[in-house]
Parts: sequence; structure tokens; C-alpha cells
Amino acid sequence: MTVHEAHTRITRGELGVPFTRVDLTNGETHELYCTSGPGSVPEAGLPRLREAWIEERGDTEPYAGRRTDLRDDGRAALRRGAASEEWQGERVAPRRGQHVTQMHYARRGEVTREMEYVALREGCDVELVRREVAAGRAIIPANVNHPELEPMIIGRRFLVKVNANIGNSAVTSSIREEVDKLTWAVTWGADTVMDLSTGDDIHTTREWVLRNSPVPIGTVPIYQALEKVNGEADKLTWEIFRDTVIEQCEQGVDYMTIHAGVLLRYVPMTANRVTGIVSRGGSIMAGWCLAHHEENFLYTHFDELCEIFQQYDVSFSLGDGLRPGSTADANDEAQLSELRTLAELTKRAWEYDVQVMVEGPGHVPLDLVEENVVLQQDWCHGAPFYTLGPLVTDIAPGYDHITSAIGAATIAWHGTAMLCYVTPKEHLGLPDRDDVKTGVITYKIAAHAADVAKGHPRAREWDDALSKARFEFRWRDQFALALDPQTAEAFHDETLPAESAKTAHFCSMCGPKFCSMRISQDVRERFREKSAEFVEWGGTIYAEPASRAAVVDIASAPE
Amino acid sequence: MTVHEAHTRITRGELGVPFTRVDLTNGETHELYCTSGPGSVPEAGLPRLREAWIEERGDTEPYAGRRTDLRDDGRAALRRGAASEEWQGERVAPRRGQHVTQMHYARRGEVTREMEYVALREGCDVELVRREVAAGRAIIPANVNHPELEPMIIGRRFLVKVNANIGNSAVTSSIREEVDKLTWAVTWGADTVMDLSTGDDIHTTREWVLRNSPVPIGTVPIYQALEKVNGEADKLTWEIFRDTVIEQCEQGVDYMTIHAGVLLRYVPMTANRVTGIVSRGGSIMAGWCLAHHEENFLYTHFDELCEIFQQYDVSFSLGDGLRPGSTADANDEAQLSELRTLAELTKRAWEYDVQVMVEGPGHVPLDLVEENVVLQQDWCHGAPFYTLGPLVTDIAPGYDHITSAIGAATIAWHGTAMLCYVTPKEHLGLPDRDDVKTGVITYKIAAHAADVAKGHPRAREWDDALSKARFEFRWRDQFALALDPQTAEAFHDETLPAESAKTAHFCSMCGPKFCSMRISQDVRERFREKSAEFVEWGGTIYAEPASRAAVVDIASAPE
Repeated sequence: MTVHEAHTRITRGELGVPFTRVDLTNGETHELYCTSGPGSVPEAGLPRLREAWIEERGDTEPYAGRRTDLRDDGRAALRRGAASEEWQGERVAPRRGQHVTQMHYARRGEVTREMEYVALREGCDVELVRREVAAGRAIIPANVNHPELEPMIIGRRFLVKVNANIGNSAVTSSIREEVDKLTWAVTWGADTVMDLSTGDDIHTTREWVLRNSPVPIGTVPIYQALEKVNGEADKLTWEIFRDTVIEQCEQGVDYMTIHAGVLLRYVPMTANRVTGIVSRGGSIMAGWCLAHHEENFLYTHFDELCEIFQQYDVSFSLGDGLRPGSTADANDEAQLSELRTLAELTKRAWEYDVQVMVEGPGHVPLDLVEENVVLQQDWCHGAPFYTLGPLVTDIAPGYDHITSAIGAATIAWHGTAMLCYVTPKEHLGLPDRDDVKTGVITYKIAAHAADVAKGHPRAREWDDALSKARFEFRWRDQFALALDPQTAEAFHDETLPAESAKTAHFCSMCGPKFCSMRISQDVRERFREKSAEFVEWGGTIYAEPASRAAVVDIASAPE
Repeated sequence: MTVHEAHTRITRGELGVPFTRVDLTNGETHELYCTSGPGSVPEAGLPRLREAWIEERGDTEPYAGRRTDLRDDGRAALRRGAASEEWQGERVAPRRGQHVTQMHYARRGEVTREMEYVALREGCDVELVRREVAAGRAIIPANVNHPELEPMIIGRRFLVKVNANIGNSAVTSSIREEVDKLTWAVTWGADTVMDLSTGDDIHTTREWVLRNSPVPIGTVPIYQALEKVNGEADKLTWEIFRDTVIEQCEQGVDYMTIHAGVLLRYVPMTANRVTGIVSRGGSIMAGWCLAHHEENFLYTHFDELCEIFQQYDVSFSLGDGLRPGSTADANDEAQLSELRTLAELTKRAWEYDVQVMVEGPGHVPLDLVEENVVLQQDWCHGAPFYTLGPLVTDIAPGYDHITSAIGAATIAWHGTAMLCYVTPKEHLGLPDRDDVKTGVITYKIAAHAADVAKGHPRAREWDDALSKARFEFRWRDQFALALDPQTAEAFHDETLPAESAKTAHFCSMCGPKFCSMRISQDVRERFREKSAEFVEWGGTIYAEPASRAAVVDIASAPE
């Protein structure tokens, strides 16, 4: 699906890198970064773009894989004897290898198809891609079992990316709805999607999501592991968790949030917080540590996790289980202690050539936002930062897409590589389709604002194209270039629905007489006429004596 | 109208300073800054709180005032022989004096009732108020002919304020609708309201608005002056403009935008801009300057304007007629040249004891936002800055409340004193009631985020109260403390409408098993139990050998 009639998905080069071509009414075209994928039939899934690339490397092997176990889908499926809607599409044997990560290739100086693809998408040199991946400053999350993926890169030298969370909870939602949310999210520009399902059919929902996803899929495997022990955190074991991770690696999950930084000794640091621990994974692991009086098994078994991830090229998203859940708790001892541990784990994962990004907050007052990314970049050796907002105030439930977009734009400008969206339903309920769209659009704004502020070479072209369309009253072009063409057009049409209004030199905001841009164009015309006159008058424009710089050389005035 | 059943408007002290008292379910109360006014009957207007204060100063005199002239209401009224809905409420004779401005009193060391009122509202020392007003670093816009006003202060040492624009255009809207928008805007927290009407019944609309407004009303008198010359900018004269200003002074307008910084020699600087001149007043004056090849009459007659404003205590809002209308044009020569002139005019107004604020952009990339307020504060000697956003990207028509809230929060944190809201309809059409609400709430978020970031002594109390309610699952309190209680409650109730869900220890977002805050509370309990145990074990918490700081003194761990 494209978002406007003036939009066409085109592909470039032999790798078929997608762009959205926007055809303007003045004959110009504009190409935008495209995340929507080639379009899928949900029951059949997407074409397997990367299958040949992975095979031609010859370093993975298909294997039988873990047997399907109804328990993976939770108790309801066990009762029923089946998932509510089993995946009917083609199943291929999972693949794995040794050191098949993009970081491994990059460090060996090899340029992969994925790197070429990403370079074309970003409009940059492929060597920049390889170098940043090799250095750990960027990641290309791309599980060998997710061949449907259109590769993308996350790193501060590249366009700021946006993640959208989907997923059911024990209270609401179905498999179809989740696939629909996925498609909807990437249509509006989500660069990755996390499936945070915690309800029924958790394995099968993920299968449907992966087979239909052109973007990297992230998960938080502890959620499924907890389901397997009937929600009793104390019963979690490393073995159950490991098994769940392998299950998800085989399905093709591209990155996983691992809360390995929640150490036993940090838990007391949250005792006097205003909002304690607000990360689900963080609170689960903190509970486990205290119950067993043992160190977090994700930390003690971290090397084994690296060995698993390495074989599938799954990237770590090192979870910030102790992130602040209120502005009062921002940048406190618990948060920063955990960040130091995440820095240590980053280095450890790199020893295995495993790609890493580091998660960040949360709720942070605006004056403390920059410090978060500065410390993370410094301590974690430039590993990509991936933050949730942050929300810059706690007083606006119902509008937390906005409270957090303020923090998100700011932290991305200062170097955060990917932003996890927040929807209007944050703190209140599970987002529906409209909330997903609002969340994605709001975060595309934050990400693009950061790209512009960072001086990304192509970012401002988009703004300029839209601003020119605006100044020239090309309303259709203004809509077509908008992040959300339908909404822009609908708002305009509320008061001026007529076809003629689409080329009118005004809108209902100020009406015809007060349109500054119409007047400004007249002024420009007049200036062009007058400027010849001024030159005759001796090359100067006279100014009032009271002002300091009394004359302007007409020759140096812009034409 | 209050915005939630747990809200009560209360007043404090003999001056009757209003607050919104929020009654929480745990017996605590919380007091919030209140802008809504005591409530009015639109036909009768509000009580005249300040009348006695103004009279007791004994330095103004009633006078007959300018005769009503149907022409003030525009051509439609002339045709009809009447405004479409004449003001029926009591008319009082306008008052004027000499040097009756708050700045005049402040400089003489006098503390006015208005200053006392403001100090109570802000919770600060009245001497701070007097000193800031005397120095020109803050203004109390308070026309002697607007006795219905509940005084407020605009300055960087005080809470960041929000202005909401209302007003009809040639295309839409009626008098009743504008009064309704005013009441609606102040209900949601607008600190001042600008009536930017350019359509029919312009004088009468303003009369209704002023008589019903508990907040300062601002206008852009050039709009009405242009109506008086049938929209032909070339026909504008100083005399027509002056007459319009006096008309509005008599009605009680508290501040007026005056585009006196658009000098003839700056007009050519806009010729190569992407979006030319986007201020309506700016484009009108630029057109006039070029047509007449004369200096802007607002600049040449500025001292006369000061003499008029001084007699009524009208504050200048020095308009940024050359503000950038696209990120491409930000911080350019035209914009900064005009700012230098505004700085010069600020000093001139202060010679007359006239209060001044300075308007700012507009559209500015995030990396250039701070520079705007730093230069303005430096050049304009600390006069309050009043910015429109700024929007940090141009690509999101339909969402410009968000693109601009990002810039607004940032610029306010760095010292902007008041933010002019932007609604979702910006660039597309005239805002309706819903847009006004969305715009005001979005800007209250930006302003409050800035107050928190600036470390305003009372700002974060509000966040903390809400966060505590959230952590303790006092859902009703969370709604009551929200900027928009109805929306927060409605979002929650979409999935969990039952009464029992209002005290449930989860919501539909994560469901009961995955609620981090519930788990976190369990963890806290468990920690309290365990910590006694740990002490028995020898006062240390054992940590895994792999980690560096292996022991934590339990005595120093927070309880």
C-alpha cells in the first residue's frame, strides 16, 4: 500500500532497493526512503529477497530445528490443541552457521549484499556502512532466518530510525490484528517493529508477523519464557529462557531485548524511586534475582547467548531494565549503574562478532536528555543508542506521543540512532490501529527533525521541496510530500473542499486578502520591477536616518 | 467550567487569586495554576475585578471615547446597518491617563495590586515581580480598559506562558464561535488569547471577546486597519492605523503586535528566500514600503505609538514580520536584521515606560533554535521573547502542533517567556474547537516541560504527584492530575471500562501479569523482607564474581 495517489514504490539497482517516488504537479519528482515493503498476502507472506544472498555465502546450513511444541503458544493453545490461526504459508528449515553476523563480515573487510543494499538506501558510500558496522557503531539487524527482510542500518551516521511496538496482551487482540498493525506501521514509515505479544498464540503470532515483515522484527524473549512458567517469575530458569531464544532465532527474529544489566546489587537502588522499576523485563529479572538471591541468569549466561546469536546473526538490544519511569527518577544511580554494565556487555558481545545496540530511557526532563546519549556513547564505545522517547514530563497521559517526541527529537539530534515510538495510549491501554499510525507519524517527525538538525546531506531536501510547493500554492504537491498526505488534504478540505481550492492562492486560515504568501509573491514581483528603478536612482535604497546602516548596495541585494 | 469532577476553582487572599484545587482519593490535595476565570455569561461578560484597583490609583480619567462607527466592523456591517450580534452588556467609559503602565509603577518602586496578584499566582516574592517588570525582563499586560482581567506575568523568571490564537477569517466563523473558542482555550490553560479576526464584525467580535476574557487579549491592529481600506495595503496610512489602535486601546486590548521592524531596506533580503515573507503583517508592511518607496510608518511613528500605549498600559508585542516560514530560511539576514531593529525599538518603548515583548519564529531546525533566544535576550536587553513554535521541520502539515512543540519546548527551556500555540490546522485551514484544545494542551506540555527543565521550584511537584498516583494505581488521581483528564480516562476506559479497573493493579497495555509497576511493588516488598535477612548474613549483598564492585554495604542501601 502507498499512502497517496502521487506515490509509487520503485526499486533501484540489481538488488532492488526500494524508494517512494513522489510525482509533483510541476513535473519534478522526489524520492523518499521507503519502508512499506513490496506488499504481502498475509496468508502467504512476502517474497524471500535475501534467500539467495544468504545461500551464496555458503556459511549456513539448514537443519531440522526445534520441534513445534504447542506449549510455545501458551495455555490457551494447549487447551484448544492448536493455535487459533496456524501459519499455513511455506515453512523452510531454519539455518545457522558460525560467525555469520554482518559484524563478522565487516570486520573481515567483506562487503555483503546487505551492506550494498543499505548503502543505496541511505545514499552513502558502502565503505562507510562496512566501517561503521565493523566498529560496532552501527548494526544491520538481519537474522539468516528472516529472508523476507529489506535490510536497513541503525547507527548515528545514518538516518535516524523509528521502531513501532505491536503485540497482543492478555486483555486484547488477535493474530490478524497484529499482522494488520505491522503492515500499517511500515506503511507509515516504521523502520523496525517489535512484537511484544504476551497473550495467546505468542509463537504463531510471531510467525505470521515475521513472514509478512519487510523490516527487522525485535522481541523481548523473557515475555514468552514467562508464559511458559505460567507467569511465575521465580520459576524462570536459564534453560527455559535459552530454549525460547533458540525458538525465536529459528523463526527469524532480528534483534532481542535482553535485560542482562539488571544486577542483583542494583535492585536496592530502586527502592526509594518515585516509580520503582517500570520495564517489564527489568521488574521480572529484579524479582527473580531477589527471590533466588542469585545474580541475573542473563548476565551469568551472557557468553552462551552470544554464541547462539552469532549463529543466526541476531542483534542484542541490551535492555535498560532500570530506566526511569518518571522525571523524578531520571539519570539516577540505578539507571547509570545498569548503563555501565551494558557497556561491559557490549564489549563482550563484540568479542563474538555479535551486533549490539543499547536501550535508553524513558522519562527524562529536557535538561537531562543530552547527558543520556553522551554517557551512553562514551561508555558503550559508540554502540547505537535506542531510546524510548524520552518523555519530558509526566503530566500528560493521553498525549505521551507528544511529551516523548520532544525528548526523542532532542536525544536523536545528539546521537541516538533509533527511537522507539510512544503512542497516545501509553500508560493507559493497548494501542489500536489509529494509535499506531499517530505514534509512527509523530516519531517520523522527531527522527526527521533530528536528521535535519544533524545536517544529514539529504534530509532538508524534503523540507525544501514541501516549502516550495507551499509557497507556490501547489496544494496537491504539499499534500503528496506531507508525512501524512490524507490528513493534510482532509484538514484543508474541511473548509475548502472545492477542486478550485487546490490551486487557490490562499486557504481558509487567513482567507484571500490576508494570505502572507500571496502578498509576499506580489512584493517579490514589485521588488523586481522596482529594483531596476532603484538602480537608476543611483544604486542605493534610502533608509530612515534614525537607523544605523543607512544604505544597502543594490548590487549585493539578492535578485 | 472545570475540566474534571475532582477539580474546584478556589481563590486565595483578599485579591482572590485563583487556583485549581485537585482533590485526590488518598486525601491529599494539589493546587494548580488556574487560567479559566470565574466563568461568565457571554451576554453579560465577567465581573470587573480590577476596576477598584485602577480607580484607587487615581491616575486615570474616564472620557467619552471615540464614537462608534459601523465602518469599524467592516463592509458587511455597513451594508446591514448593524453588527451581526451587537454587544448588549454594560458599556463603561474608556479610561486613560499618563504613564499608567505597570513598568512605570515598578520603576518608581510601587507595588501594584496587579503585581501582588501575580506574585501569589506564581508563588514568588512580589519584589521579584516588581524588579523584573522595572527592568523590562517581564511584562504584566493589563490595559486599564480591561478590568475583567486576572493579571498574569510574562518573563523568563516565571512560569512559561501559552498564547492561543482565535479569530474569524473572511471564509468562516461567527462572534459566538469566537467567544466559545476563547472560553474553551482558557479552560484548557491558555494564558493569553490573541483575537486575529480579519472577517466580518471585527470590532464587535473583539468587544465580546474582551468582556468575557479573564486573560490578556492581544491583537494585530494592522488587520483591522487593512479592512478599513478595503484590503488594499497601498492605501494604508499612519492616521488610519493610529485611529484603529486608539479604538482598540479604548476597548481594552492588552497587547498589540506591531510590525515596526520591517524596514524598507530589509525587504530585498527576502527575495531569494524559499518562502519569502510569511507574516501577514510583515507582508502587508513590506508591500506598503515598496509601493510608496517610504520607510514603514510604524517605524517612523513609533514614538507616537509609545505615547498612546503609555496612556492605557498597552504592551508592545514587537512583531517579527520577517520570521522564517521554512527551515531553509531560518536565522537568515532578513530575520536577524529585523531583530536588531526590534532591539532598538524595545529601548525606545522603555523610555516611555511602555512594556515590551519581542516576537520570534517560526520555522527553525532544532540545531538553530537556541541561537534565536540567545541573540534575542542579548540584543533586546532581556525583554521577554514570545515565539511561534518554532516548527523544527516542514514535512508534516496536519501535525504542526507536534513539529512546533518540539521547537517550543526547546526554546522555552532556553529562555523564551511565552509560546504562541500552533494547531493541527496550521498551514491548512482555520482551527475549530477541537484544534484549539489540541493546540493548547500541546503547548501546555511544551511550556511545562520547559518549566521542569529550567528547575522552576514548583513545576516538578505536579509530575511527581501524577507519577506517584500512577505507581500506586490510583487511576482516578492519575486522570484528575492529567493535563486532559477526560482524554486520559476515555483512553483507559476504551479497553477496561469497569469501575473495578479504576483501582486495578494493571491496565490493558500489558495486562495483569506483565505490569512492571505491580511487579516492582512486589520486588520492593520482597526487598524489605530480604534486607533483614541480608543483614543477618553479614551486612553485604553478594554479587557475581565477574562484576567489579562485588559488595554493597547494606547499611547504605536505601530502605
